[in-house]
Amino acid sequence: MEEADFMRRAIALSCDGVAEGGGPFGAVVVKDGVVVGEGRNAVVPGRDPTAHAEVVAIRAACARLGTHDLSGAVIYTSCEPCPMCLGAVWWARIAEIVYGNDRADAAAIGFDDAAIYQEVCLPIPARTLPLRRLMAAEAFEGFRRWQARPDKVPY
Amino acid sequence: MEEADFMRRAIALSCDGVAEGGGPFGAVVVKDGVVVGEGRNAVVPGRDPTAHAEVVAIRAACARLGTHDLSGAVIYTSCEPCPMCLGAVWWARIAEIVYGNDRADAAAIGFDDAAIYQEVCLPIPARTLPLRRLMAAEAFEGFRRWQARPDKVPY
Repeated sequence: MEEADFMRRAIALSCDGVAEGGGPFGAVVVKDGVVVGEGRNAVVPGRDPTAHAEVVAIRAACARLGTHDLSGAVIYTSCEPCPMCLGAVWWARIAEIVYGNDRADAAAIGFDDAAIYQEVCLPIPARTLPLRRLMAAEAFEGFRRWQARPDKVPY
Repeated sequence: MEEADFMRRAIALSCDGVAEGGGPFGAVVVKDGVVVGEGRNAVVPGRDPTAHAEVVAIRAACARLGTHDLSGAVIYTSCEPCPMCLGAVWWARIAEIVYGNDRADAAAIGFDDAAIYQEVCLPIPARTLPLRRLMAAEAFEGFRRWQARPDKVPY
């Protein structure tokens, strides 16, 4: 399979997403030239706001490969990842993102991707979605335990 | 239960995360004064890079309530959400985020939150994680089908 085939598969998955009552988004994770995970948007049919195509594809790839680390993989997605999905790609250590539609295309058909990109870059006091800090001293206990654990696995 | 109790529970979950080999992060989703979803970081033990406390808590709340829409809920999290989790909170329509540690605290113990915040705000050509556009005209097919579907459910 070539690169165009991977993108064609992601696009086909985006059409499946619509057919199933989800959003028009599809993605495949490719490692060593092989598709190791596929995903289509299932927010509404799956009743899961995190079930974006990229997140679903990454979770499928990790389940298949038995690791949280997809270093060296490439994700082909029918649309530029939203900040949630960009974060998921980052944490999965995926090496490259190849996308079709972009955030402006997504905004034009009613999705919030561009708005979330604006939001995430604002300082907290300027945000639309309010954030408030509480009990910071107590909350540090988990971090203390993490630091003290000799066999911790960073990710 | 009061607000401090919700945060105490999120902090306890962050300690559970460490005990189980995950990262030091915990979260609870509260709706109408009741905890409807809990999560602790399970990236390493669950072999899932998306298994951050907030994502796990949101998925649990949605599974319990049978909806992708958590409008009116509040999330209490032991640490400021990373961009992935902030995106998940946004898409879930959660009304407010209450957090303990912040992204600088997380960076100080080796987590990438601050780096991802920098990355997500950069224009694509300036990114560390490369993005490349491919087959945009073909990729629009899913969007066309979405727009044409009379019974689509926006989210």
